Amino acid sequence: MTYCVGVKLKSGLILMSDTRTNAGVDDISQVRKIHSWDVPGERAIVLLAAGNLATTQIVVSLLDERARDGSGPSVLQATSMFQVATLVGDTLREVINRYSPLSAPGASPFAATFILAGQVQDAEPRLFFVYPEGNFIEAGEDNPFFQSGETKYGRPMLVRALDTAMSFEAAIKLLCVSFDSTIRANAGVDLPIDLIVVPSDERRISVQRRFERDDAYFSKVSSEWSRALNEALAFLPDFRF
Amino acid sequence: MTYCVGVKLKSGLILMSDTRTNAGVDDISQVRKIHSWDVPGERAIVLLAAGNLATTQIVVSLLDERARDGSGPSVLQATSMFQVATLVGDTLREVINRYSPLSAPGASPFAATFILAGQVQDAEPRLFFVYPEGNFIEAGEDNPFFQSGETKYGRPMLVRALDTAMSFEAAIKLLCVSFDSTIRANAGVDLPIDLIVVPSDERRISVQRRFERDDAYFSKVSSEWSRALNEALAFLPDFRF
Repeated sequence: MTYCVGVKLKSGLILMSDTRTNAGVDDISQVRKIHSWDVPGERAIVLLAAGNLATTQIVVSLLDERARDGSGPSVLQATSMFQVATLVGDTLREVINRYSPLSAPGASPFAATFILAGQVQDAEPRLFFVYPEGNFIEAGEDNPFFQSGETKYGRPMLVRALDTAMSFEAAIKLLCVSFDSTIRANAGVDLPIDLIVVPSDERRISVQRRFERDDAYFSKVSSEWSRALNEALAFLPDFRF
Repeated sequence: MTYCVGVKLKSGLILMSDTRTNAGVDDISQVRKIHSWDVPGERAIVLLAAGNLATTQIVVSLLDERARDGSGPSVLQATSMFQVATLVGDTLREVINRYSPLSAPGASPFAATFILAGQVQDAEPRLFFVYPEGNFIEAGEDNPFFQSGETKYGRPMLVRALDTAMSFEAAIKLLCVSFDSTIRANAGVDLPIDLIVVPSDERRISVQRRFERDDAYFSKVSSEWSRALNEALAFLPDFRF
């Protein structure tokens, strides 16, 4: 399983992803699901992968090779995030179709999705969700975040509390709460968690950090959140018959 | 969609269910999903239905007719909750097979599940989850509740806070919080919510109540919980780079 979240704040983009992958409960390992390209000051592009691991790794390798090769369209040459999203979507569909040509991409056992975030040149930062078919939707003021993988356990707090005017520090705290709820509920999602921050108009990865299994901040959020929830519940009026 | 929860506390059984049913988002209506039989002092039996509505209503009608008819095994004649669970499971599989004889019951478009709770004669109160195939699992000290339908949004708080030593009043409050998270996240779950309480060793439905859309207690829990969560979040330490 997987849990990934991409958030578009006024101050920039935050991407977080767990690192657990499994082919059955007897075959669990750890893998990086966050990938990025940047030309500091000119562009910063981040992908969060969910779904079939072979598919997402091949897509990322293809995007990488084509960017270094320089002969065709690439994530480093695209002149807008819309072009990057089209390229990621086309590459994703290409890979799924290559290994399961007879399935519809979304129904393929090799299906995958990406959350794509970034800023290119003078345009605004943008956040997309890319489907196995290669098409995509974009986040806006009314829906400033995308989740992928095991989305439900961690969603209620995001819906209640996420505000695009939040600071990075407050939003990362909220994301830690959302990841904590998910990790407690689904053994297929776990620490370490990778974090990338792309501040608006800097066009660079300003923060790249891994919350390890024993991370002091994450542990503190987890235990204090648990205590706070129980206190909040105790404070609510009991039902009266 | 549906959200149902059955809880087994030391003090007895609590069953709650929403009332929304839909065949597509353009065909939404309200229906009772909680059904009960009791012979006060001798037995109290409650079912929470999830899944195909035709299936669950036919199963309940069959159980009802067979109980009144008195000619065969029935929920009113079974001498243990285990027998009741077997009867409910057999009837469920019978109905699913009748209308889709070529599907495996769990894969049938007419599949359904029941949460079954009750107490019969001198035995302990028991809580079961009945599968479309007719078999069932039972709640115990380590897993004192079952959910069905849209289970994930409302699960984290149950996992964190449910304790079998809770009072009915505190547990119903917790269930209202769990329903509130689910209702906010999924338009297919909504008030009114039906509640039944079966106190241990009384073998009767002691409380049967509906939380209507404008229920004062539920509204208070919903708004205060929202405020308490935001306060708890604000109180947690922000992330520091």
